[in-house]
Amino acid sequence: MDIYHGSIVYSKSKDELAQFTDSYIAVENGVVEGIYPVLPEKFAGAAVTDFGNGVIIPAFSDLHVHAPQYPQRGIAMDALLYDWLHGYTFPLESKYADPEFAKTVYDAFVDDMIAHGTMHAVVFGTIHSEATGYLIERMENAGLHAYVGKVNMDMESPDYLCETAEDSLRLTEEFLERYMGNRTAKPILTPRFAPTCTFELMKGLGKLGQKYQVGVQTHLVESRWEAEESVRLYPECGCDTGIYEHAGLLGNGPVVGAHFIFPKEDDIRILKKYGGYAVQCPDSTLNIIAGIMQTGTLMDRGVNLGFGSDIAGGANLGVYSQVSRSVQLSKLKEFYEPDGNRTISFAEAFWIGTKHSGELFGKVGSLERGYQFDALVIDGLADPFHELTPAELVERFCYLGETGHIRARYLAGREI
Amino acid sequence: MDIYHGSIVYSKSKDELAQFTDSYIAVENGVVEGIYPVLPEKFAGAAVTDFGNGVIIPAFSDLHVHAPQYPQRGIAMDALLYDWLHGYTFPLESKYADPEFAKTVYDAFVDDMIAHGTMHAVVFGTIHSEATGYLIERMENAGLHAYVGKVNMDMESPDYLCETAEDSLRLTEEFLERYMGNRTAKPILTPRFAPTCTFELMKGLGKLGQKYQVGVQTHLVESRWEAEESVRLYPECGCDTGIYEHAGLLGNGPVVGAHFIFPKEDDIRILKKYGGYAVQCPDSTLNIIAGIMQTGTLMDRGVNLGFGSDIAGGANLGVYSQVSRSVQLSKLKEFYEPDGNRTISFAEAFWIGTKHSGELFGKVGSLERGYQFDALVIDGLADPFHELTPAELVERFCYLGETGHIRARYLAGREI
Repeated sequence: MDIYHGSIVYSKSKDELAQFTDSYIAVENGVVEGIYPVLPEKFAGAAVTDFGNGVIIPAFSDLHVHAPQYPQRGIAMDALLYDWLHGYTFPLESKYADPEFAKTVYDAFVDDMIAHGTMHAVVFGTIHSEATGYLIERMENAGLHAYVGKVNMDMESPDYLCETAEDSLRLTEEFLERYMGNRTAKPILTPRFAPTCTFELMKGLGKLGQKYQVGVQTHLVESRWEAEESVRLYPECGCDTGIYEHAGLLGNGPVVGAHFIFPKEDDIRILKKYGGYAVQCPDSTLNIIAGIMQTGTLMDRGVNLGFGSDIAGGANLGVYSQVSRSVQLSKLKEFYEPDGNRTISFAEAFWIGTKHSGELFGKVGSLERGYQFDALVIDGLADPFHELTPAELVERFCYLGETGHIRARYLAGREI
Repeated sequence: MDIYHGSIVYSKSKDELAQFTDSYIAVENGVVEGIYPVLPEKFAGAAVTDFGNGVIIPAFSDLHVHAPQYPQRGIAMDALLYDWLHGYTFPLESKYADPEFAKTVYDAFVDDMIAHGTMHAVVFGTIHSEATGYLIERMENAGLHAYVGKVNMDMESPDYLCETAEDSLRLTEEFLERYMGNRTAKPILTPRFAPTCTFELMKGLGKLGQKYQVGVQTHLVESRWEAEESVRLYPECGCDTGIYEHAGLLGNGPVVGAHFIFPKEDDIRILKKYGGYAVQCPDSTLNIIAGIMQTGTLMDRGVNLGFGSDIAGGANLGVYSQVSRSVQLSKLKEFYEPDGNRTISFAEAFWIGTKHSGELFGKVGSLERGYQFDALVIDGLADPFHELTPAELVERFCYLGETGHIRARYLAGREI
């Protein structure tokens, strides 16, 4: 039994934070046993790690991140999207044909993700099996909960990043067979997005999804262009999300659609039907501005939500920054498009970034009894001249926190 | 003579960054003497401080910040503005009647500002002379370039923060007389904004401005409400900025108008006429969303611009974060209001946050010969797997930098 003393904050419900000061959290075999204002007699002999005024919170989940774009974070952010993709992103992604290059980047990426307090992630690799294999192994060995995908793209892509449908499917099946048995970091199908995939490829991926019972991640209705282009390419599917349903890609495991800014009614209906997650990437939204997700409305309609750092469309790996940025974007959305949109509260945003998105991976993202103790200890944000509640300190962390404010990190009860 | 070795970046012009790798910057009596790719013979005997791959950049200027709101940063950011002001801000500001409380906050504020790389600032105090006096003395003693103001407000304010015009003017004159002779941290007139000031007070302040030749800071056309309310109260002035001109407050020294989001043509004309600065507060804009400044358009029309952290409307003291956020906001502005608005480049935003806003204080904000060596050394942002230019590292710093990435800080050539 491990006992930690300090303040404790987690999401009690969608719009309420539970907070405890001067309390104890007991962890048994990496799982939360309970929270106590006074240490019970039964734990009298146990060692107590004292974090004083530190606040213990759940670790965050990043539901959309391009690991191979890590080298590009915070560079040429004022370039036009086409120039950014063709001048930086695609040439960079092609480098992952070299496993040695991939290794150095992915080591740095995983370390930095942990430094930022993220312990669960849905991750894009590249089309390269070996490089993406290294990434998934690295995350598995670290014990991080993850879904990692080898990317599929077989049309409308630069020559040096374009596969044939046949090769793409063969390599993907090999990837699935190799990593399906993983304990925490599992494979996920990853068609880049509809405009870069033939329907032959999509259907083939759907068959693999059904055969191996694995889910899918992709970009969904990120821009008006994508929403329209998808329907133009696949008119019989009715909407962007419909393409994945027609291809048999939904219902086999987690469904993760990044951005989801311009959904039609059918996109929402289909995503909801399969319990899919719509992933807002607030930082990326501000950099590659093509509209703002209607977070409040989608939440009220029961669509599952999560946040993504979207490295390198976003520059910040910290999901805690995305929590505050999402509150800000909801205000902007309401200001510019008041009809049917509402500002979300900090409590709602924190819930999305921890407990709610954590459900995608299992019992993580909360500090309630029975949850895996994936936790951060936040410190150094209190003021000497007045007292703040633990929940206020957590809000402050999400608004102006730095990695240096994370004093300790626990993954399945083990300090890392 | 002090010599520093490393990379060097500063704004060569409005839209171009000068960058040097593996170079030397020579500093004499706190002022930049020159930049050299190879150390000249004449400096052969001088000691060289080697920052290796660190990037030396100018320190930043914060043109709008409420020092007394420092305790409130990152708290209740999802509250409605009225609740935020009346539930948090005004009660907090009233505490500065206690000089001891003020002392502990202002000490922490100034230290944190320096930690964030800001060495020049235009600062709101409260209505309290003694507390604001402590703040200006603290900044003067630190050698920071600043304009600091005792706030004036004599109507439409909570009782506990409302002065009579007579008291307000008397206390302000005493404040000016006491601190006018300061070397770097000087007083500035600070009517909170038109809706909280009688015209008697405004005119009285105008007379003080003319008598002592001191400038003015205030909030200008921050919201549609403010723009309209000002004209309703003072119809003969035509526009918000016109009130200050009628009161004789412009033309006596620096003119600093925070936010400037909803200017009429006359606001722009008058601000330009007096060389006034329109201060964008990007973080604050995202929190208290009431529109977005048209930065690109104002820049193209020759209006002086600066950035403000606007603590606690903004939560982040780092002006470097405001630089990147301003690029993002210019994209949002162009997306939602394409007519006449344009995205600004990173180089333009960096110029605003350093060289251009530095001009308000004198020869600071650049590393060209003759500028005071107020500088930061940025480090820890390079990647092991590819080389980035110094300018790319600076952009990355502005997008994802933390105080920990500032390895050293120099003020007038002295490390602090």
